[in-house]
Amino acid sequence: MKEFQLIRQIQQETAVSFSPDCDHGVRLGIGDDAAVLEIPAGQHLVAATDTLNAGVHFPVDTSAYDIAYKCLAVNLSDLAAMGAIPRWALLSLSLPQADAEWIQSFAAGFKSLAQMHGVSLVGGDTTSGPLSVSLTALGYIEPGKQLTRSGAQSGDLIVVSGSLGGAARVLDLWEVHKFTTERHLLDQPQPRVGLGQVLKGHANACIDVSDGLLADLGHILKASECGAHLIVEDLPYDDFLAGLEDELRWNYQLSGGDDYELLFTLPPEHRVLLATWSQQLDIGLTVIGEIEADGGTRCLRKDGTVFEPRSAGFEHFRQKS
Amino acid sequence: MKEFQLIRQIQQETAVSFSPDCDHGVRLGIGDDAAVLEIPAGQHLVAATDTLNAGVHFPVDTSAYDIAYKCLAVNLSDLAAMGAIPRWALLSLSLPQADAEWIQSFAAGFKSLAQMHGVSLVGGDTTSGPLSVSLTALGYIEPGKQLTRSGAQSGDLIVVSGSLGGAARVLDLWEVHKFTTERHLLDQPQPRVGLGQVLKGHANACIDVSDGLLADLGHILKASECGAHLIVEDLPYDDFLAGLEDELRWNYQLSGGDDYELLFTLPPEHRVLLATWSQQLDIGLTVIGEIEADGGTRCLRKDGTVFEPRSAGFEHFRQKS
Repeated sequence: MKEFQLIRQIQQETAVSFSPDCDHGVRLGIGDDAAVLEIPAGQHLVAATDTLNAGVHFPVDTSAYDIAYKCLAVNLSDLAAMGAIPRWALLSLSLPQADAEWIQSFAAGFKSLAQMHGVSLVGGDTTSGPLSVSLTALGYIEPGKQLTRSGAQSGDLIVVSGSLGGAARVLDLWEVHKFTTERHLLDQPQPRVGLGQVLKGHANACIDVSDGLLADLGHILKASECGAHLIVEDLPYDDFLAGLEDELRWNYQLSGGDDYELLFTLPPEHRVLLATWSQQLDIGLTVIGEIEADGGTRCLRKDGTVFEPRSAGFEHFRQKS
Repeated sequence: MKEFQLIRQIQQETAVSFSPDCDHGVRLGIGDDAAVLEIPAGQHLVAATDTLNAGVHFPVDTSAYDIAYKCLAVNLSDLAAMGAIPRWALLSLSLPQADAEWIQSFAAGFKSLAQMHGVSLVGGDTTSGPLSVSLTALGYIEPGKQLTRSGAQSGDLIVVSGSLGGAARVLDLWEVHKFTTERHLLDQPQPRVGLGQVLKGHANACIDVSDGLLADLGHILKASECGAHLIVEDLPYDDFLAGLEDELRWNYQLSGGDDYELLFTLPPEHRVLLATWSQQLDIGLTVIGEIEADGGTRCLRKDGTVFEPRSAGFEHFRQKS
């Protein structure tokens, strides 16, 4: 199969249907040297890129459908964490060999999530090489409205969407038993695009939980020059983790990666909005701690005793223990 | 070395200096979930992405400096072929292991070309995996002014910048002897950004020569639904190829990839502009053939006889002969 045929197949099978009254701004899409895109007037461009490599970011047995789904999801999650509206994607796909069936499944996974968020694939390339998917997500935002990591203030509530630790638990079970239920928690994260929208103008800081709660909260604290405490019993979890001992579960919730929930800090006077947003978006929003003036992150039990987590989050390039 | 340190090192060492009166529109750069960028008012966004894998797109012994240089160059070349002004880049770097010295050389290569074209690195990620560099180049263009593949008209002159076949010859010599002069022809292509600018409003079609002259001309012919003839003696070449037999040289020029020159079609009444552009940009511009109503591409000698080239250009996923 030639590169040209591959690109054509991907183009045809990822084509998202939009209502005719919705102009997606694609002035020139796949098939030339570059895409030409019209950002809505007065908006700023928001751009994120992330690569997923086989065996590093997903188990080697992951389906083509899920690889595409996850790669788009993690990039849309980055846009969501800024409060941006996603619109376009560019895809770079390295494949050991061309395979029409694999591509068909990949395109279907991409399309299912792209359709949900109104994202058009507008360009990319395919190359031969070890299986790797690199995606750039493009969107837009009103000038100055972006949610950043650097705005957290002492006294802010720390809030997280959905539940934590599920993806890491699934990965552990898969590594040991090569079988687990709930594989979707690892393979099909849900980018919280709608939540990012409503947080604008309210949240002081925001990040998505990709490396693990402690690691990503750490990014906010460093950028905002403040500290925090978390209440471990308050960390939200999926039913899937309900049977675990508390300390094991807390470790998954604090240090497991790949959840792609939004972690944000909210001035306490906006606390009342959480119930409204939660209902409007059908998503759990849980207060899990508070920003402090300084001092890193303390993990506390409700009785005030300190819980010492096992590790501080996932790092690439770290020797595996 | 942690991912955070890697990103910080890349950020610091690729930072391009701009004159203070030049606003590059970076509203939020590296260090958050996504970059926020301001496109100049009334302009359209132009976006291209390309991945280079070790052993596929560059010899495994290529220096980190040249890998970065080439990866940025090939993407800027795509923007140049649209007539766009490049402005920003996002980088996804997969590395077998973190190595501060390698990163330093990589950053220096990136910066040398980025500085030349006023391009800022605004985001990206680093992951562990087989050596692979994926880059997205972003720029802008006046609405409707893009040079495409689809506008060629019967009677247009076919023009190419610089010289052809050098990179393919270097690669062949390297594969046999593990030594060659003129390695820069393969490793440091020059994106023809200035040429793309002046072609707008004059050229009917444009593409960059990445897969080889015949393959890339083929893309124009297919998109424009026309044919062409080329005069093989007129194909421009570097001194480096001067000693070769004609037919061997023509094969390099017709089928070798990685030249990253611009190939464009020009209405004959604009022929007089070629000398002006050539002088203004200090770049060779050679008329090598003519667009015809139909019939694919014929390669002719000046005496009118047909030259049959060895192959039609580089294809990934093709069995190597």
